[in-house]
Amino acid sequence: MKKKVLKFGGTSVGSIERILHAAKIIQNELKNGSKLIIVVSAMSGRTNELIDMSKSVSNNFNKRELDVMLSTGEQVSCSLLSGALNDLGINAKSWMNWQIPILTEGEHNNSRIINMNVDKINNFLKDGGVAVIPGYQGISTTGDITTIGRGGSDATAVAIAKIFDTDSCEIYTDVDGVYSTDPNKIPLAKKIDKISYEEMLELSSLGAKVMQSSAVQTAMMYDIPLQVRSTFTDRLGTKIFNKESLDYSKVVTGVAYSKDDAKITLQSVEDKPGIAADIFEPLGKNQINIDMVIQNVSSDGKTTDITFTVKRNDIEKSLEILNKNNKIKSKNISFKNNVAKISIVGAGMVTTPGVTYKMFRALAEEKINILAISTSEIKISVIIEESSTLKAVKKLHNIFNLD
Amino acid sequence: MKKKVLKFGGTSVGSIERILHAAKIIQNELKNGSKLIIVVSAMSGRTNELIDMSKSVSNNFNKRELDVMLSTGEQVSCSLLSGALNDLGINAKSWMNWQIPILTEGEHNNSRIINMNVDKINNFLKDGGVAVIPGYQGISTTGDITTIGRGGSDATAVAIAKIFDTDSCEIYTDVDGVYSTDPNKIPLAKKIDKISYEEMLELSSLGAKVMQSSAVQTAMMYDIPLQVRSTFTDRLGTKIFNKESLDYSKVVTGVAYSKDDAKITLQSVEDKPGIAADIFEPLGKNQINIDMVIQNVSSDGKTTDITFTVKRNDIEKSLEILNKNNKIKSKNISFKNNVAKISIVGAGMVTTPGVTYKMFRALAEEKINILAISTSEIKISVIIEESSTLKAVKKLHNIFNLD
Repeated sequence: MKKKVLKFGGTSVGSIERILHAAKIIQNELKNGSKLIIVVSAMSGRTNELIDMSKSVSNNFNKRELDVMLSTGEQVSCSLLSGALNDLGINAKSWMNWQIPILTEGEHNNSRIINMNVDKINNFLKDGGVAVIPGYQGISTTGDITTIGRGGSDATAVAIAKIFDTDSCEIYTDVDGVYSTDPNKIPLAKKIDKISYEEMLELSSLGAKVMQSSAVQTAMMYDIPLQVRSTFTDRLGTKIFNKESLDYSKVVTGVAYSKDDAKITLQSVEDKPGIAADIFEPLGKNQINIDMVIQNVSSDGKTTDITFTVKRNDIEKSLEILNKNNKIKSKNISFKNNVAKISIVGAGMVTTPGVTYKMFRALAEEKINILAISTSEIKISVIIEESSTLKAVKKLHNIFNLD
Repeated sequence: MKKKVLKFGGTSVGSIERILHAAKIIQNELKNGSKLIIVVSAMSGRTNELIDMSKSVSNNFNKRELDVMLSTGEQVSCSLLSGALNDLGINAKSWMNWQIPILTEGEHNNSRIINMNVDKINNFLKDGGVAVIPGYQGISTTGDITTIGRGGSDATAVAIAKIFDTDSCEIYTDVDGVYSTDPNKIPLAKKIDKISYEEMLELSSLGAKVMQSSAVQTAMMYDIPLQVRSTFTDRLGTKIFNKESLDYSKVVTGVAYSKDDAKITLQSVEDKPGIAADIFEPLGKNQINIDMVIQNVSSDGKTTDITFTVKRNDIEKSLEILNKNNKIKSKNISFKNNVAKISIVGAGMVTTPGVTYKMFRALAEEKINILAISTSEIKISVIIEESSTLKAVKKLHNIFNLD
């Protein structure tokens, strides 16, 4: 008998109607004879409502108390879904983080699941029960409620799949899978049937908001097969495997883009060991996420240019921190808002020469200027003017045979 | 140093503004050097929102899961108030029912607090902390979340006052105390400065929605002085003591009325032992609350008339159950919707003759017909036509010198 984790995201439990629909999906899975652990997010919008309330109380709302409040979002959807299942005659029961318990470590608002007790729930499953568990939360070793960061319900689902050794982990969401690019903007975007963890990781860190990156990472680490599928259709969705189980007929799997970026360039900084650390340490300490970093080879042997991207709403704070930084000798700092990052991702790239060239040529044909480039084994990213985003994505989607 | 319980009701934490205001009240109490345990209700309206959601899922929503959901209401206000206190530089911390724990027994949705652990919270108070605790909930001996019935936050506050042996228990609410009658309808209504537990019990069971009856009962049993006061004014409110500490210059303390009543009369039922039980047992088992019961002396020695009141929305169900009841031989059942119960309450009544007569005479002067009468040591209730409610209340308020 198969043991499965089914995770329902915020939009999949976003209204009473949708909760009743999710209950039907679970009922059908039970008819297939599976043992089921259900992980649910908060009803869509509720977490933001709670955060807004905390901000109205204080701009610096206590982090422990924020976790106490945020955890109620999933608690409510757990209860509603369990009630809906009971109404269908199914022996379902909600299990709160402290009842299991789900143990976490790390700071409030950003903890990690380290373990959970399996005995009580396994006994309940053995008796034919369906366990409904709130995502995104746990308790610390001191017995405080913790949350594991936004989108953390995916991480809970994968952690449960690992710790309960389930046969699969299915992520029910409002899209019917992972697409070759944004289907809302590019009508030719195609659903990808199978993708590797690495590609999925690149795509989700690049703005494809289908699954949370750290959850994919955990799945990759423990080789847990994932499936992303829609709550609203019967289509099979996208399966996420390890690379070895896939064949690569296509070199490029998807084209991703993110639009809220800004670029900062430090010109003629001293080219000496430790300079990058001197620049980025104060930014990191101020919770500014650095994305791409490009450092060119020094032309005069003494100075170099360093370019990096940050989220656009971090730009002012970043510039302030850089200007205050006494360790940076030459402070010719320029920046550019309104840039976008376009990336092509594909596990097949490693073994296929000429992908980089083909990408740059294609952008040139569209008269799109490349402001910065960064590559990894399975990804090439470029920074361009934001206004050219869609033109670039369409062109790349086309020339890499994704249409 | 005084140890106090302050309880903030739903309207007192009903918005961010009000939560910030409650935090200020707590800050002032701390300046007076008190050690404080705070009990909070859910933000006003939230419990009903959650109940409505459960009803949209199922008309017969699982009671265990309902408790899981309802308990989140107080959890959110606990967190918000703790965060607001932290923001004022106060070492406040929320404690969930399972973290304390608050142990309950009895059914879901209607449990009773039987005990709670005091050590962790007492240590926290000793270190200068302010403990913020959700009202209306606890956990069962099996570790499930339970709630203790609507309005149960008062009961939590009184239970904490008892178990932590505090010096007082102050109920912050949206009215500035207990009134001689409904101040919204009778402008001459006066705030009562001091009242006995017994009178308060009669008044609150008669529709004065200031405090939950079972909480007053517990306070009476353990002689815990209560104070009902407004969150929105500095007035002292109403103190609730035991009878011995009060003097009675007035015979009648208050006039109460409830309007959603209906009257049922069973004529010529067999006058034999057990007949009342035969009538009321099936009603009780169907969760129908019986209020007043009047049985006249049998005139012929064989049959008697029994009149009782129920809430108006229970009338149809009640009649159905009575008609099905084979143990009632004579079934001449009549009923009347649109009746109201008017009560005068006063601990001084016991020692003052003529109160009953004075009440009936006053109603007669207003040409108000009395449909049924019931008396206790400190209360006289009459059933009248609903349309005469205000006229009756005004008259009684006046003749018993309460204006």
